[in-house]
Amino acid sequence: MRLSLEEAEKLVNKLNFRHADNTIVAVIQDSKTREVLTVGFMNREALLKTLTTGYLHLWSTSRKKLWLKGETSGNIQIVVDVKVDCDADAVLVLVRPVGPICHTGNFSCFYRGLMELETGD
Amino acid sequence: MRLSLEEAEKLVNKLNFRHADNTIVAVIQDSKTREVLTVGFMNREALLKTLTTGYLHLWSTSRKKLWLKGETSGNIQIVVDVKVDCDADAVLVLVRPVGPICHTGNFSCFYRGLMELETGD
Repeated sequence: MRLSLEEAEKLVNKLNFRHADNTIVAVIQDSKTREVLTVGFMNREALLKTLTTGYLHLWSTSRKKLWLKGETSGNIQIVVDVKVDCDADAVLVLVRPVGPICHTGNFSCFYRGLMELETGD
Repeated sequence: MRLSLEEAEKLVNKLNFRHADNTIVAVIQDSKTREVLTVGFMNREALLKTLTTGYLHLWSTSRKKLWLKGETSGNIQIVVDVKVDCDADAVLVLVRPVGPICHTGNFSCFYRGLMELETGD
């Protein structure tokens, strides 16, 4: 999925960037396995870059910068489709991962059950 | 899934409530269909209530209050499992919906493609 800048801007203007740093929430799901891979935030620029390049970009709320997922690891996430929620302040991005999205090497950042946090202390 | 308050508190203490209003992000996924239903935020209290009652509770960032999903509609979301992400500031809640989670009557809040926003203006 790749849009022209003009098309992308038209869509982006309809979203409600109401979260911290003027962001929307972005849930990332594997388009084939339907596994939820990660969740992050996108400001206007991150969403525009995602739509015009076809590669997942996020806004890093801790580092305060635009972030092409896989920029250093090479594990780019190719965008297959984008859904928007009822109040237009969140998107669901369906991707085809070239490699694991998580810095731990897991395909999903949600690789642990909550109960597993109990072990080891 | 229902935990005692003691068990729940132990787990909740390991999470990093670093988003606005001291929250974590909560992605809600249908445990059977694997459809992503919605995304929201949970403060400490919302997660504790979710874990101890077995029903999905969120923190409403617009209304600034704790919110039992389905409180008025009856469309309770029964918690089947909870996963935690790599940096412990987001959870993935797997639910069995008694009815649609979305106020529009759709089973998922992500019922529209982003491109569909273009129609009608």
